[in-house]
Amino acid sequence: MYRPSSCSAGGLPALSNGWSVPDFRCSPIGYLATPFHDRFGIPRQPRLAPHAHGQLRLLRPYDRAEAVRGLEAFSHVWLSFVFHRSAGSWSPTVRPPRLGGNQRVGVFASRSPFRPNLLGLSLVELLAIDTSVGVLLTFGGVDLLDGTPILDIKPYLPFVESEPAARSGFVDGPPPQLAVDFSPLAQTQLHRHESRWPDLAALIREVLAQDPRPAYASDERRCYGFRLYDLEIRWRCIGGQAIVEQIAGRKNGHQVPCVSAWPGLLR
Amino acid sequence: MYRPSSCSAGGLPALSNGWSVPDFRCSPIGYLATPFHDRFGIPRQPRLAPHAHGQLRLLRPYDRAEAVRGLEAFSHVWLSFVFHRSAGSWSPTVRPPRLGGNQRVGVFASRSPFRPNLLGLSLVELLAIDTSVGVLLTFGGVDLLDGTPILDIKPYLPFVESEPAARSGFVDGPPPQLAVDFSPLAQTQLHRHESRWPDLAALIREVLAQDPRPAYASDERRCYGFRLYDLEIRWRCIGGQAIVEQIAGRKNGHQVPCVSAWPGLLR
Repeated sequence: MYRPSSCSAGGLPALSNGWSVPDFRCSPIGYLATPFHDRFGIPRQPRLAPHAHGQLRLLRPYDRAEAVRGLEAFSHVWLSFVFHRSAGSWSPTVRPPRLGGNQRVGVFASRSPFRPNLLGLSLVELLAIDTSVGVLLTFGGVDLLDGTPILDIKPYLPFVESEPAARSGFVDGPPPQLAVDFSPLAQTQLHRHESRWPDLAALIREVLAQDPRPAYASDERRCYGFRLYDLEIRWRCIGGQAIVEQIAGRKNGHQVPCVSAWPGLLR
Repeated sequence: MYRPSSCSAGGLPALSNGWSVPDFRCSPIGYLATPFHDRFGIPRQPRLAPHAHGQLRLLRPYDRAEAVRGLEAFSHVWLSFVFHRSAGSWSPTVRPPRLGGNQRVGVFASRSPFRPNLLGLSLVELLAIDTSVGVLLTFGGVDLLDGTPILDIKPYLPFVESEPAARSGFVDGPPPQLAVDFSPLAQTQLHRHESRWPDLAALIREVLAQDPRPAYASDERRCYGFRLYDLEIRWRCIGGQAIVEQIAGRKNGHQVPCVSAWPGLLR
């Protein structure tokens, strides 16, 4: 269970004008269902993997059609969420993957999950609104773990929030892309699973194209794997090319650890 | 004192996978000092009033230079904040000023402060970082009340967060602008106060140009007023023109109610 230990550090700080604000509590408006069950493989920014769809069913008392009335007029929305797997820790400096994982920047100069208050922010595409039973929202291009607690939904306002000329330091564009190919075995397995997940091939390509390997990894013999839906995707990276070796169904309850802990599984 | 009564409504909802996430607590990393002491007059979006500067001094344990290392490479940052004057209430539907205040949309289709979890989000310009004593950040184009609790600072990433072509429903651009003029009396008073607030004229013009009157207001004889810094700005709107009548210093402790409660003060 996630314990935001950093969140109680503030106590009751006094305002300059004398009155004080207590720590305040938030409760999720819902939990986002996504294909991502490991940190490994999650796109490092939203909308890098358009076929990564997320579904949010609003909890009571928010599950009323009126609460989303007019939202269909917006193509993009902000999700405010909790980094619920970050164990409540934060560090004054972090090592962004974009800097090769060996250079430290301040946590407030990063989008690291290991931050004060564990608050995350993600701009996603709004694909569908279903108010037939409660409220079910479908988003495209999600970059969040399955089960992420969502605290708020806000419409995206391009006239104030689109700043194409903004300076963005070391994060100046999408990461370089890998070519992605499937082994004959993986292709056969792909066809079997596409009946349940029609966009599976596209999603695997989008996820692997971003080279989700840890920054320190370079062993070409090494096999990586990550969970997508209820599948285990196993792949290698040879040169600039990602090759999907296997797409295996996962036995119920069979917990495969994040691959960065099990090198060379297929050797 | 602000009480987030809505925030404890969530209880301990269970995740699909069985484990549960409690309500979680946040504590401010600092409180933003701004010129705005009333809701009335606050720009309805960030950066509509570039001369509205905000200063944030980070609280312990966040007040370390390392925590903002590299932030200078970013021109814009997100402020996650608490709507601390919204009394913890929320409503499934709200009436956005942009719709004339007489049409209701869902709270999640709006940026209303009266929302679940009272979380706000504002994109501001990063003007200065001072780490000589603790950490003091200066922002431009703020649209927040003085004393707003800040929960997080995140760098703005244009390559994922700038979507100029996004559909944005009823919020398709900045509101129509009013012409702004100063009465002879106001001009004299302006010169007196500009020694302390050099950008005062520009800030008053930016604030009034957006027509901060309540949607229902149309009485041209009516005088409006709002607090800026430690000043009371009194003005009328005649035709498409805002005329600043007076810029009065405020006696210590003298609390002027938000003007929408005191029509015709100068009559």
